[in-house]
Amino acid sequence: MHSTIMNFPLTIPHILQRAERYFPDREVVSLIPAGVNEAGQPIPGKHKYTYRQMAARARQLANALKEAGIQKGDRVATFAVNHFRHLEAYFGIPIAGAVLHTVNVRLHPEQLVYIINHAQDRILLIDNVFARMLPALLPHCPSIEKVVIMGPTPQSIPGMLDYDQWIGAQPTTFDFPELDENDPAGMCYTSGTTGHPKGVVYSHRSTVLHSLASALPDALNLKHADSLLPVVPMFHVNAWGLPYTATMVGAKQVFASVFSDGASLAKLLSEEQCTRTAGVPTIWMGLLQEVERAIQAGTPYDLSKLEMLVVGGSAAPESLIRAGDKLGLHLFHAWGMTETHPLGTCASVPVGVDVESDEGYHYRAKQGIPVPLVEIRAVDGDLNEVPHDGKTMGALLVRGAWVSQEYYNNPEGSRATQVRLDDQVWFDTGDIITIDEEGYMAIQDRAKDLIKSGGEWISSVDLENALMGHPAIAEAAVIATPHPRWEERPLGVLVVKPGQEQPSREDLNAFLAEKFAKWWLPDAYVFVEQIPRTTVGKFLKRALRDQFKDFRLEQ
Amino acid sequence: MHSTIMNFPLTIPHILQRAERYFPDREVVSLIPAGVNEAGQPIPGKHKYTYRQMAARARQLANALKEAGIQKGDRVATFAVNHFRHLEAYFGIPIAGAVLHTVNVRLHPEQLVYIINHAQDRILLIDNVFARMLPALLPHCPSIEKVVIMGPTPQSIPGMLDYDQWIGAQPTTFDFPELDENDPAGMCYTSGTTGHPKGVVYSHRSTVLHSLASALPDALNLKHADSLLPVVPMFHVNAWGLPYTATMVGAKQVFASVFSDGASLAKLLSEEQCTRTAGVPTIWMGLLQEVERAIQAGTPYDLSKLEMLVVGGSAAPESLIRAGDKLGLHLFHAWGMTETHPLGTCASVPVGVDVESDEGYHYRAKQGIPVPLVEIRAVDGDLNEVPHDGKTMGALLVRGAWVSQEYYNNPEGSRATQVRLDDQVWFDTGDIITIDEEGYMAIQDRAKDLIKSGGEWISSVDLENALMGHPAIAEAAVIATPHPRWEERPLGVLVVKPGQEQPSREDLNAFLAEKFAKWWLPDAYVFVEQIPRTTVGKFLKRALRDQFKDFRLEQ
Ligand SMILES: Nc1ncnc2c1ncn2[C@@H]1O[C@H](COP(=O)(O)OP(=O)(O)OP(=O)(O)O)[C@@H](O)[C@H]1O
Ligand SMILES: Nc1ncnc2c1ncn2[C@@H]1O[C@H](COP(=O)(O)OP(=O)(O)OP(=O)(O)O)[C@@H](O)[C@H]1O
Ligand SMILES: [Mg+2]
Ligand SMILES: [Mg+2]
Repeated sequence: MHSTIMNFPLTIPHILQRAERYFPDREVVSLIPAGVNEAGQPIPGKHKYTYRQMAARARQLANALKEAGIQKGDRVATFAVNHFRHLEAYFGIPIAGAVLHTVNVRLHPEQLVYIINHAQDRILLIDNVFARMLPALLPHCPSIEKVVIMGPTPQSIPGMLDYDQWIGAQPTTFDFPELDENDPAGMCYTSGTTGHPKGVVYSHRSTVLHSLASALPDALNLKHADSLLPVVPMFHVNAWGLPYTATMVGAKQVFASVFSDGASLAKLLSEEQCTRTAGVPTIWMGLLQEVERAIQAGTPYDLSKLEMLVVGGSAAPESLIRAGDKLGLHLFHAWGMTETHPLGTCASVPVGVDVESDEGYHYRAKQGIPVPLVEIRAVDGDLNEVPHDGKTMGALLVRGAWVSQEYYNNPEGSRATQVRLDDQVWFDTGDIITIDEEGYMAIQDRAKDLIKSGGEWISSVDLENALMGHPAIAEAAVIATPHPRWEERPLGVLVVKPGQEQPSREDLNAFLAEKFAKWWLPDAYVFVEQIPRTTVGKFLKRALRDQFKDFRLEQ
Repeated sequence: MHSTIMNFPLTIPHILQRAERYFPDREVVSLIPAGVNEAGQPIPGKHKYTYRQMAARARQLANALKEAGIQKGDRVATFAVNHFRHLEAYFGIPIAGAVLHTVNVRLHPEQLVYIINHAQDRILLIDNVFARMLPALLPHCPSIEKVVIMGPTPQSIPGMLDYDQWIGAQPTTFDFPELDENDPAGMCYTSGTTGHPKGVVYSHRSTVLHSLASALPDALNLKHADSLLPVVPMFHVNAWGLPYTATMVGAKQVFASVFSDGASLAKLLSEEQCTRTAGVPTIWMGLLQEVERAIQAGTPYDLSKLEMLVVGGSAAPESLIRAGDKLGLHLFHAWGMTETHPLGTCASVPVGVDVESDEGYHYRAKQGIPVPLVEIRAVDGDLNEVPHDGKTMGALLVRGAWVSQEYYNNPEGSRATQVRLDDQVWFDTGDIITIDEEGYMAIQDRAKDLIKSGGEWISSVDLENALMGHPAIAEAAVIATPHPRWEERPLGVLVVKPGQEQPSREDLNAFLAEKFAKWWLPDAYVFVEQIPRTTVGKFLKRALRDQFKDFRLEQ
């Protein structure tokens, strides 16, 4: 017997057409650099248009790509921050059957060259503000046939196309190619926190399914009435897929371009009556500071419509979540990675638990439970599930309808992360977690960052989160430092809050002793001006370890 | 280039395992008949257990089916109302690779025999309250090898198995068969409103996708914290798929079994603090009456947690929606059919529109816009889209990820409903609709029930909805009656509210004249005790037409 259900491939054109048909007047708002001030800093201008215009321009882009000879599966790269033209590329490229490769604009030129060559990008759409980098890149990127500059170009750059002119010459109707739902649609490289960025190729199907699950009420709860500002960059894991999810439900989309400091964000969130926003912890630290400052100054922002600040990418300390609530800024913790599109788990609290109770914060500081169509396991070295006691650490394996099982053209990387368990393929995330009785998982560390002390593991992330709750500490990273007897011991690297004294080791360890066993407490602390960060705002432990490689604990 | 995403089939076992792993203690509550009172009426008892127990028993059922020789694709029928054992069958049957065939318990024995033979069901799970029908059925249903009685069986029935004993003998672990997401999982027949019931076969994939889309915030907004009472029967379009959707998100499920009168429902909704419920308009008419009565009597129900009453299956008149709001019972209009799993469209209002304003009611009385992964068109006889003016009627075509493109073993029925448009397959619903400028569709009629007057169409549903807003009218059906000059003219068949006078034709048409052109107004009205209904509570126009086939309009 066969099902009588029709074949209806899950593809990105459906998302675009739905928005255009049912939400044509819903707005897309972008801050864009409109000149520079005396200090050479960009001044924001505001651009507004609607899904109707967005969809028409996305189809023009698709036509331009077709005319340029782009074939099914060819890569078209974007080198851009968050704005409406980038949104057009999110749709125009995949609806043409091509693959949207979003390049991380903050990588070093060498890494950029590596990635572009690895992906074999044929066309590059690049923001005008980054055009100055082209001379350093292009000679090393022979696959690139065409460069198209997005945004008003002050001086015309010889040999380069202007995006608006280029697509403007095209019709707004487009003859959609036939697409299989498993056809590739997008390509992202990992952040490079633990090594060289590795490439992942999303499909139309995975993008659509990820959008559906992301919008669910227990996930990001995204709906037509929402106004969403994804601060997370469109060059990083597709801005967590939000441009697709928001378009699918017809939400208003707001983009901040290069203006992601606390003051710019607070102003934009307020002006556009945003209901939801998404970003990494550092972004929210900046926003909280600014919102608090404005209250002190007697000129508070009106953020009364803002219901949810999704936080992920690295762990949000409980102290940050509590501080947010005090200001009416409600952080919602999610976990994911480039390899998972990214949404894997999120920390909605169990029914009956008050979100602002101690119990509520306990759950909200964890990374939560998987959304539908994602499965996770925490396993020991023999691939046995570790006990769900909230204590025992295990390697996080994941599988699901939008989880990558390998890296693009990287058999070695693929082999290193593929695991077979219960007759199924799982992806080994490289994250170390605990799972509690309720199934809530908490990231303890990267496998590479774990501190191995006397045969036991110490979670650097746990210590960091606790230290960042100390009144004098702004930022804390904990790394392993060699120890003759215990192999490794924790070293705390701290940034004090402005105007605060450096606390003593005794003080800090007394503070930690409430939560941790004695043998977890760092043996030493050092104070620094700032913790080195990755291009997307994560602590760069590799760099820290390097910096302190000669540090020796007093015996 | 290929996507690097893993193959993760969308299957029903994933839904079950998710609920068990993350929501093991969430409750499933069922009213069940626990004896009869002096009048021979069933007395309700309450059964409560958790997803943990439900999942264990579903696996026991799967083992029992396997032991009984049930193979992949074999049909296992249920003949049952809404309760926990039926929920176990919703999972136990498909996870075993078999096909859940939910038989409509209210059909005539002849139709039952027709359906069971057509589906070739091998095992029948039947409620004890229906066991008395078996002698009339079984001799004519040779495909049925085993009958299993669900619910305490007063006297043991020779040759029949007791469900609890049967599954109780099995282990609670189950070796899941390998499933393709396109494998058949469920089978439903249409209501038989317009003719013989026709069979549709759902797949694992369509069930999972339908669940995801149903739970979206702009659809039924279903989440873990919800307590859901689907009044719509589990033998009718899978209770609108809600048992799957609710399990996927880990919501509490409440079942009313045979107790669907206003008083029983109001009590149950209140006791179980339901937040959501779903049913056809007649059910809500009954509930509203009871809630109003209780208020008058000074013993109101506490329905303060109830946020949404999903209404569909036939049109909810605007007057009903308004009356509900006055009592805090917020109706949410959805459209669908057996062939669409059923969710096709729902009437969330556009952003910025107050749901309790005139504009809000205008949208809410329509059937709304399609959910993601469903597409609709309204076309004329030449398959051209009719104007989106909210006036021009067209035939409703639908396609989508859970839409059936044919009927099971019914090539004639399949041919009659399959349409090719824009190079794609569409399903012709048999519904006649309008679509307005905002894309909101409104059901005007069944194609078979349209009144063709002088070459123009008159919508019986529109007239009915308006008439049911008249203060003296409880129910109204409008049918075509032959006319020598105009071919057909509308005849109104009315039920007056208790204690009200029969209004005159002049009075009724004056009431309608505010909304309709003169040539739409019925030429005559007749008053009846009740409108005949289908097994699932829809007006049975076939029967009405039959009843009034000799009615002649005065010339
Ligand atoms: N909510 C969170 N809490 C803690 N860590 C998180 C959270 N969300 C994401 N992460 C971390 O971010 C990682 C995914 O990040 P991403 O895909 O951007 O690249 P990366 O892992 O930082 O870089 P690379 O894989 O190249 O080393 C996860 O594996 C996890 O370690
Ligand atoms: N919200 C609604 N408003 C108006 N009509 C509705 C609504 N929801 C469903 N319907 C009607 O119900 C039909 C689907 O019902 P169902 O699948 O139960 O079988 P049926 O069409 O009544 O029976 P059959 O196809 O055997 O004649 C739709 O085609 C439509 O006519
Ligand atoms: Mg990584
Ligand atoms: Mg029908």
